[in-house]
Order: sequence, then C-alpha cells, then structure tokens
Amino acid sequence: MNNILIIGAGRSSSALISYTLNKAKELGWFVTVADANPDLAVKKVGDHPNGRGTWLDVMKVNDRRELIERADVVVSLLPAHLHLEVAHDCIKLKKHLITASYVSKELYRLGDAARDRELIFMGEMGLDPGIDHMSAMQKINNIKAEGGELTAFRSYTGGLIAPESDNNPWHYKFTWNPRNVVLAGQGTAQYLENGKFKYIPYHRLFKEHRPVQIQGMGEYEAYANRDSLLYKDVYGLSNIPNILRGTLRHKGFCDAWNALLDIGLTNASYPIMDSEKITYHEFMEAFTSNQAGTSVKEKIAILLGERPNSPVMKKLEWLGLFRKKRINLPNATPALILEHLLLEKWALKEEDKDMIIMQHEFEYKLNKEKKLLTSTLVLKGRDSLDTAMARLVGLPLGIFVRLVMQGKITSTGVNIPVMEEVYEPVLEELKEYDVEFVEKEEVIG
Amino acid sequence: MNNILIIGAGRSSSALISYTLNKAKELGWFVTVADANPDLAVKKVGDHPNGRGTWLDVMKVNDRRELIERADVVVSLLPAHLHLEVAHDCIKLKKHLITASYVSKELYRLGDAARDRELIFMGEMGLDPGIDHMSAMQKINNIKAEGGELTAFRSYTGGLIAPESDNNPWHYKFTWNPRNVVLAGQGTAQYLENGKFKYIPYHRLFKEHRPVQIQGMGEYEAYANRDSLLYKDVYGLSNIPNILRGTLRHKGFCDAWNALLDIGLTNASYPIMDSEKITYHEFMEAFTSNQAGTSVKEKIAILLGERPNSPVMKKLEWLGLFRKKRINLPNATPALILEHLLLEKWALKEEDKDMIIMQHEFEYKLNKEKKLLTSTLVLKGRDSLDTAMARLVGLPLGIFVRLVMQGKITSTGVNIPVMEEVYEPVLEELKEYDVEFVEKEEVIG
Repeated sequence: MNNILIIGAGRSSSALISYTLNKAKELGWFVTVADANPDLAVKKVGDHPNGRGTWLDVMKVNDRRELIERADVVVSLLPAHLHLEVAHDCIKLKKHLITASYVSKELYRLGDAARDRELIFMGEMGLDPGIDHMSAMQKINNIKAEGGELTAFRSYTGGLIAPESDNNPWHYKFTWNPRNVVLAGQGTAQYLENGKFKYIPYHRLFKEHRPVQIQGMGEYEAYANRDSLLYKDVYGLSNIPNILRGTLRHKGFCDAWNALLDIGLTNASYPIMDSEKITYHEFMEAFTSNQAGTSVKEKIAILLGERPNSPVMKKLEWLGLFRKKRINLPNATPALILEHLLLEKWALKEEDKDMIIMQHEFEYKLNKEKKLLTSTLVLKGRDSLDTAMARLVGLPLGIFVRLVMQGKITSTGVNIPVMEEVYEPVLEELKEYDVEFVEKEEVIG
Repeated sequence: MNNILIIGAGRSSSALISYTLNKAKELGWFVTVADANPDLAVKKVGDHPNGRGTWLDVMKVNDRRELIERADVVVSLLPAHLHLEVAHDCIKLKKHLITASYVSKELYRLGDAARDRELIFMGEMGLDPGIDHMSAMQKINNIKAEGGELTAFRSYTGGLIAPESDNNPWHYKFTWNPRNVVLAGQGTAQYLENGKFKYIPYHRLFKEHRPVQIQGMGEYEAYANRDSLLYKDVYGLSNIPNILRGTLRHKGFCDAWNALLDIGLTNASYPIMDSEKITYHEFMEAFTSNQAGTSVKEKIAILLGERPNSPVMKKLEWLGLFRKKRINLPNATPALILEHLLLEKWALKEEDKDMIIMQHEFEYKLNKEKKLLTSTLVLKGRDSLDTAMARLVGLPLGIFVRLVMQGKITSTGVNIPVMEEVYEPVLEELKEYDVEFVEKEEVIG
C-alpha cells in the first residue's frame, strides 16, 4: 500500500494533509488531494514531492472512481451526506475509508460488505466525534480493568476562543461551522441522572446550563447535548446510572443565547416578510407584541424578563440588534438573519487563536472508595488558519491513515474508534503534537 | 337532483344528518349515510323513510365509486387527508362535493377540472373554518359598500364549556378533537399590527395571551392563531394594517397551558423511556434538572417561576401530574401522555353543555369618523351529544347542500364560502336555528 486519497481540501484538511505529507516522505507514500476547487488542493500540497493536488467534482462518478481506484486508503472530508457515494465505490473497488463525520445508518448497513472484503470503514475519527470516544474509552477500560465500577460519566467539549483573543462581551467567536452553532440543541436533550431518564426541551436548554470546573482553567458553563444516551452501550456503560454529554461555553454565554432563542431568532422554519427591506431594529420589533415599554429595546427586555442594562441586554445591544441598519437579506429566516449578523460580529481575526477544551469526569467505586477521575484536554490554535480545531480533527485522521497503511489495524467493517488497537496508538502519538489529557484523581466518598 | 351522499357518521355528523333528513321529506330527497361503522350510520338515520345508513370502507375504490355514482351531491366528513380520493371520484363522476375541512393545495389544483364540468367543490363550510368566513365577509362587504375603509380586523373563536357546566379549575373540557387541543399553536403565529408583521414563536404563544371583552359575556383571553395572514387577500383586505385571528379561552387558561408547554409536555416528537412503567410523578421528575427544591412539585414550581400554591400550580396539581399513579401507556410521547390524562380530567359529562363564542371586531373609517363594529355569536349546546360545535359545523353544511340541490349556486370550481350568494342565504337560515350574531357599533375616534 502506498497511495492515499484525501477528498476535500477545505478548512478541516490542513493538519491532515501536512501530517500525511510529512509521513509520506519517510514511508514512501504518495498523497493525492482532490477538491472541487483545484487551486485549494494544489496550494495545500505545495511543491511536496510526495503529493499532488487535483480537481474532483465528486458527483462525476467516473472521475471519482478513477481517483479512488488508484488509492489504497481514502479519507473523505466531504459534507456528511456525500460519504455514502464514496463508501459504495470503496466497497466496489476494495479500498479502506476514513471520515470524521457521524456514521449514518446507511453507512452502518455497509458493515457486512466491508467485512467480507476485509476493509475497515472508520467514521467519527476526528475531535468530537473522535478524540472524545478514544479518550473516554481508554479511561473506561482502564477503570474496569482495575476492577472499578463506573457510576457516572460526564463529558464536556467546547470549541472556544483562547483568552488572549477574547475581546467581545459574548467571549465567543466562530471557530467552526456557524450554522451548526446557530441551530445547536434543537430537539430535546436526554440524559441519565441517578438511574432516571431526564429531558430538557430546546426552549429551556440554554436557560438550564450548569457550571463546570475545568482543570487549570476555572469555571465554564455547559448545556446538555441531545445525544448523551447514544454511546452508552457502545462505551460498555449499559447500566451506568449517570451519563451526560455537554457543550462548554464561557460563563454568561448560555443566558444570552437563551435570550436570542426566547425572542425567536434561532428559528429556521419560516421566512421573515420583507427581510431584504427591514432593519435589525424592525426585525426585533416584529417579535414584540403587547409588552409595556416605549422603545423596542425596553419591550424586548420586558419580554425576556431582563433589566434594560443587564449583562444579557448588553450582549444583545453589542450585536447591533437594536440598530436601524438594513438587514439586506431576501427571504431570510430568523436563524439566517442571526447567522449573517453573527458572522460579522463573531468573525475570527487573522491572528486570533481558538481553544478546544474537552473534559471527561468518571465517578467509580473501587475497593469501597468512591473516586472521581477528571481528564482534561486544553489546546490552543496558533492563528485563524492553524486552529486547534483543525489540528484535533486532522491529526487523528492522519494517524489512523498511518496505522492502516502500515497494516496495524485488524478490525474490519464499519466502526467508530472505541477499540484498544485504535485508541492506544492514536492517543500516544497525539502527545507528540501537544495533544495530551491532564488527569486528576480524587477520593470523593 | 335528489340524491345526497354523506360520508362519515361520526361526532360532527348529527346536525347535518338531521337537517338533510328533515328537508328530504319536504323536498323529495334521498339521503345515504355511509360509514366504516355501519351501525353508527344506520342509527343516525333511524327509520326515516327518506334515508338509509350503509357500510363503506372508503379505501375500497369500487364500493366508494358505486355510492358516489348514485349521488348528486357528496358531503365528505372524512379526515382531511381522505377528501382528495373522494374529490377525484367526484370529478370523474361529475358530482358536487362539500366539506368542512381546510382546502388543501392538492384540492385547489382540481379547480379547473371542477369548473370545466360545472361542479362546485366547497370546502371550509363548517364553523371555523366556515361561519367565520361567512360572517366576516358579510360585514366586510357591507362596510365597503357604505364607503368605509377597514383599518383593523380581529376575529376570535373558542370552543368552550358553558358556564353552567364549568366545574373545574381550568374552566375547560374537551368539546372537540383532544389531539388538536394538545398540539395547538405549534409553529409560529404571524399577524399584522399597525402595518407591521409580527411573529410569536410557539414557546411564547400562550404566555403572550391578550384579554378580549366578549359582548354580554365579560372578559376572556385569546392566543394568536398561526394563520392570521392567510385570508387577508381572500377577504379583500390586502392593504389592511391590522389583522389578527385568535383562539378564545377562559381567563387563566393560557398561563396554565403555558406551564404545560414550558415543562415540555406538549412535545410529540420523541417517546418517554419506560412510559408504560413510570408514574405521573416520575414523568414530571424527568423534566426537572438542577432546580433547587426538595419535592418534584417544588422543583417544577421553580422551573416555571411560580409560587408553589399559585393558580397555575393548583391547576397542574388538579390534573394529577404529581400523583404516584402509573401512566400505563407504552412508547408514549409527552403529548400523548398529556392527552391521555386530559381525556380523563376534561371529559364532557353526558349532561354537560358546550359553548361556542365567535367574535369579530372591525375598525373602519367612514365620513371622518373612526368606528368599531363588534359582531358576536354565542351558542350553547343542549348536552354532550347535541353540542353547539356539532350544530355549527353541521348546519352550514346542510344549508349549503340544500342551496346546491335547489340549483341556487352559480359558482363553480374549488371555493371557500366568501361569496354573497353563499353567505347571505346561509347566515339568514342559520337564524332559524338560533345562530345569530349580535352587533354593536361604536364611534371610537
């Protein structure tokens, strides 16, 4: 095996491409990077002798198959809904496939076909999902091997702005997909507490945030993810009485985001009439009804149950929601108008550094003691291109490519990285890139 | 023409069937009532010489067509999604069709075909939609004919319990489809105020109720319907600056319903785990998270921002939401569990009387005066079978059947009852059945 195909040269590809090119020289690989924008692919490969950038319209079946045919391992960084086409080709042409996306039901259905052909299709091999699975599984299996009985697993991840680049009252900038941030949490969050199922509907999700102490960083806040129960069985925690996955934000963020949600600004289901003509001030006015108050700002404060100069109201005002400036977006939903505004206000500056925090908390009983193991990863980016996010998505992908290329993976079929032969070498090698969890163990009862 | 086919002999059919049978004797008609439950159809027709009840499984195409073939006018009381099959048969077999349901886009598409065959397909010919259209159009056209310029149209309808049968703290019982009551308002309410579009998202809809003075009845409260803008053009009010349609409830209802919504009990999108095993008390507990408070009731009060003995909390308690009684419903969504509980608590007793209130408010300028015309209908049922709701849905259908049978309708195609040749005779004849709007006109500026 010596040919790697990476499909997609966008934002999340840099760390993966440079990792594989570095290894390519040493291990005699050739790396092809294909993108609908060939300039982007060519630029990312540079003049590296072991790589080339090329054009690919992934919907052109013959072009796609020709590239896949020549590869041994394919990494798809395409939008999640496009993986399936590539996966079918990989079955047909007998190629391994790696992605950082959630594994869909449709992809899982290819498991037998992949196994029959002795292929590994590895999904959720990035940061979240990805490093979260691997780092949690390592601790869970260690605790079990010691004879410990897990009683609680809580896991929090946040894609944040580093303190040195944090200069707005929201303490937040877009370091990843803005649309996902605007629509985050829609549905109902479900988790387990003291053996009982718990539900938080979307309209209360951000109001019901909880404080989380991050080792070495201080207090943050978290809102519950929708999928806390999803990995319970996969992680081997079928009978655990407490399980919660959450998203981390800076203190004060959730209350202010709750205000945007409560007004109705995160709704993507209907267009605002005349949205190309009206101002942000009129947009806000459209959500007020019979509140007292003379100004739109006062009415919104009353609607939210906030004092006019509360920290929440100051954050709304800072966004420019009460300005008489035209929105200038035709046929836009409230969520699209909000996204458009935030893209400007929460833009990462060139020199800005992002910061990823991931913290797992494991409570377990061992030898009649109750213990708490806290395992924390904090990583900052270098600037707005070389982000911690891109590194933490790209490096696990790259390392796993290496493991497959070197024949070190025996698993076959459709998988996520919860097996020792994957998480041990990946987590070990990540340390070389300053990606290391800090641990603290306490006796709590 | 002398044959009428009524498909459906359920709850809403009684007034229609007795009206048409009464007229049948006088006018020489024959009325066939068909239902999947033939006993129901036979019972509703009784031993009337001009009618018969029969069995029909509406999905059996040949049986359905055979019945339709023999009719001149078909009234479909089927669930809304089944009208379309019947409508296609009516096109093919050249029969008029009448329903009380909202006209779907698919049904509107049959307009040209119906017109070509000189057929009338009349939808929205019940109470709401139905009487609301007719009574509003009559006043709007009168005001315009006088030279008045309409500046506001507000219309409120409520299916309520009559004061003499009102004996619970919610002042509400189910007089119509319980599921529609539980899911009411989901989406975003849109209306016009002072020429500006207004939006109320579902999670604030019941909190933002407004008081409405009902002539002769006192103060009620209303929440905005989703569809206020839908009939603006159809009613000839394209440039009106204020338009609002709302649903009427007894004072105090909306705040308490808002509490159910806020907890998450009106959500029909996911099942509650182990819903067959848990109690209502555990069901409530599942929606609490990190609220202070020792009991589940206290936590819920805090979640809602209510004092523990507030009128809202008393209404929740009266429903039995904090009782340790098993729910006993497998795989149920929160909304289904709530519906199941309310079906017991809000059941109409045999002797209970329902009450329909419909009130239109028209503001208009005429001769430099600003006027307000209030037009109000209040009708009570006789008992739990002969309800005001059934009469107000069935009588307009019946009267319109008569008009069509007697050749008095010239309109063709797919319609709703906004034309004078329909609303004048229907509203006039409704008075014989004590269905009469009371009017008040005031100079307000």
